[in-house]
Amino acid sequence: MPVPEGSDFPLQNLPYGVFRRAGEPARIGVAIGDHILDLDALQRDGLLEAGGRLPEAVFGRGSLNPFLTLGRSAWQSVRARVTELLEDRNHTVRDLPGLAGRALIEQSEVEMILPVEIGDYVDFYSSLEHASNMGAMLRPDGDPLPPNWRHLPVGYHGRAGSVVVSGTPVVRPWGQTVRDNGPPAFGPSGMLDFELEVGFIAGAPSALGAPVPIEEAPEHIFGCVLVNDWSARDIQRWEYAPLGPFLAKSFVTSISPWVVTLDALGPYFVPGPEQKPPVLEYLRSDRDWAIDLDLEVTLASQAMTEQGLEAEIISNTNLRTLYWSVAQQLAHSTSNGARVRTGDLFASGTVSGPRPGTYGSMIELTWSGERPLVLPDGSHRTWLEDGDTIAMHGVCGPAEGAPAVGFGEVRGAIVPSP
Amino acid sequence: MPVPEGSDFPLQNLPYGVFRRAGEPARIGVAIGDHILDLDALQRDGLLEAGGRLPEAVFGRGSLNPFLTLGRSAWQSVRARVTELLEDRNHTVRDLPGLAGRALIEQSEVEMILPVEIGDYVDFYSSLEHASNMGAMLRPDGDPLPPNWRHLPVGYHGRAGSVVVSGTPVVRPWGQTVRDNGPPAFGPSGMLDFELEVGFIAGAPSALGAPVPIEEAPEHIFGCVLVNDWSARDIQRWEYAPLGPFLAKSFVTSISPWVVTLDALGPYFVPGPEQKPPVLEYLRSDRDWAIDLDLEVTLASQAMTEQGLEAEIISNTNLRTLYWSVAQQLAHSTSNGARVRTGDLFASGTVSGPRPGTYGSMIELTWSGERPLVLPDGSHRTWLEDGDTIAMHGVCGPAEGAPAVGFGEVRGAIVPSP
Repeated sequence: MPVPEGSDFPLQNLPYGVFRRAGEPARIGVAIGDHILDLDALQRDGLLEAGGRLPEAVFGRGSLNPFLTLGRSAWQSVRARVTELLEDRNHTVRDLPGLAGRALIEQSEVEMILPVEIGDYVDFYSSLEHASNMGAMLRPDGDPLPPNWRHLPVGYHGRAGSVVVSGTPVVRPWGQTVRDNGPPAFGPSGMLDFELEVGFIAGAPSALGAPVPIEEAPEHIFGCVLVNDWSARDIQRWEYAPLGPFLAKSFVTSISPWVVTLDALGPYFVPGPEQKPPVLEYLRSDRDWAIDLDLEVTLASQAMTEQGLEAEIISNTNLRTLYWSVAQQLAHSTSNGARVRTGDLFASGTVSGPRPGTYGSMIELTWSGERPLVLPDGSHRTWLEDGDTIAMHGVCGPAEGAPAVGFGEVRGAIVPSP
Repeated sequence: MPVPEGSDFPLQNLPYGVFRRAGEPARIGVAIGDHILDLDALQRDGLLEAGGRLPEAVFGRGSLNPFLTLGRSAWQSVRARVTELLEDRNHTVRDLPGLAGRALIEQSEVEMILPVEIGDYVDFYSSLEHASNMGAMLRPDGDPLPPNWRHLPVGYHGRAGSVVVSGTPVVRPWGQTVRDNGPPAFGPSGMLDFELEVGFIAGAPSALGAPVPIEEAPEHIFGCVLVNDWSARDIQRWEYAPLGPFLAKSFVTSISPWVVTLDALGPYFVPGPEQKPPVLEYLRSDRDWAIDLDLEVTLASQAMTEQGLEAEIISNTNLRTLYWSVAQQLAHSTSNGARVRTGDLFASGTVSGPRPGTYGSMIELTWSGERPLVLPDGSHRTWLEDGDTIAMHGVCGPAEGAPAVGFGEVRGAIVPSP
């Protein structure tokens, strides 16, 4: 199977997504180069059963959930089988009469849809640099980090029903805001922001009342996606005390359509930052859980898009510095007995690095409006304007002996409030 | 159809629930006196079609969601038809050969299950008395209310996957807590609390990007349930800044099994408290939206249960004083373009009245431990102990010309951490 040089989706990746070709029902495939391997077609042809029986038409669905529920051994056996089918030395897909035509579809021909039915959506605050930046802006004279920050992965629940797939337009939200201590007014947000995040999607569920020990995290984490946690800072400032962000976040959250599996990320797990003070026992793991994932954010104004200018890279960072790991986030979230359900989304919180060009949000990049960005079309940006497009990309590697494993993109354009 | 005197479920109520008789699949019924009218059996017999066609087996399901999605006109036509079938002057159910035996089931014979698949769960903070009490305890020298409190219904997202039906045991959660500014420790919560709340369940969904105007709330609100938002105050104190409650709430949230419809509550909508300062336009409604619902909380220790002592009434209040109405909560929640999905649960936040005996949580009743409760078995309570059972009841009326409409109960017993 030929994969273009530099593709996000080599044989070692095989991320899962849900696609729809015009006039056909949605179904599940894995990305390979510029194509999608249609797993539903393969299963119908009896080509996926080598690794054990799968439920009938488990890939002929509009979401990954039924497959995710099966658990790690099913995920691994399908991955192994798909790898075998696509390997150069194996000609099954290429040579079986008609199979390539039916099972290999060009990505440009399909619409990608939300890959999972989201159960609960948790958003963390796990980047030390981001939390420190926010603290420095909000509490310039105090400790930038809340006292609990180094002891537990701070997080809160977001709105699962507002999670959409990449490409969905982002309608500028209305909300209550306050200026200069005046009375609140209701209108379109004037401080619209993005947040660069990476989220993991839960596979096999756990039971209520039974915390997931950190070493069992791989049984419950299926894979990862890019997340743009769009935020309205003016709404947030007025509403968030004392119970946290609500409408400032709940209007829309975008995710990338391809779920990159934990197995594909294998070569890119690296030691995370040292945690000082040491964390409590239930948050300790013997494994490396940080992910060496390069992340990039681009912004294109409507004028740039119309003039065919390339989108401006406004941030470049890496996920490996994230203070709290996905395994810690999962162990903490269930430590009180809460259960995980298939399709739950746990996002990292904004990923920021140590320098301005590595910050993962406008509020940090412009330092709350003090240092506007200048775009190639000559315009300035403190916050996002109507017509702006934000795209996020993520790639692991390449590393020695391991090709690059990419995440594709999550993209969204701001459209005016109606 | 004979209904016992003082039943929560007269002909004017007809709340919906999902029940399971041993060895049979779950299905949907309405409560009438001590019985359940099996709507699936009625539909199979063609007795529900008078008001228009319904999807096949829409009541032969494990959740109300497919029925709720149909919207208000379907809810009203089924209600009208069921009322007709059960009226004294109509002998259809009683007289059709064998129908009563098949379609009327004793409540004592069945297990009630969670009535809806919860989409998102939002928890508000809409009682002025509760918010003032919490503020007075947490900020004794400041304004007890946050500045935004009278301008918008403060709320946050809770964990939908932890919502369970009445009767489900409540496992005491573990979590991180801090004592006397020492380092955090991980262990069972020592400050377990209940919160008396009432929640509404969304019926017909709305679209992303399209706020629900307050006057359209009746299209999207199907009905109400009692909610016990169990809380671990020691976990909450340590974790909640700056993003709000997370694990202190997410271990379990209990709801009553019968969903009382907006139509049944009709006679009990009353004017709410005056809102000063006046609220913004999008939160103004011409209708009365406060609900005259008497609420009661009882506590029984394990010893009391074993000795057969009656549970102690520890709180008695009424929902009508709630500052923010369900319609305002819905309009606010969608004002930024967030959509409502069928099965979303919106809870009021703790309902407290103006005097100590009317407070809806242990932290208020004992004033953060200063005034322990004394139980009939001679024991004292600052927080809930293992073996304690909390039960909540709610009844509207009776009022002139309108019989009482009850909510049944939500009950839960604390079991020790494993």
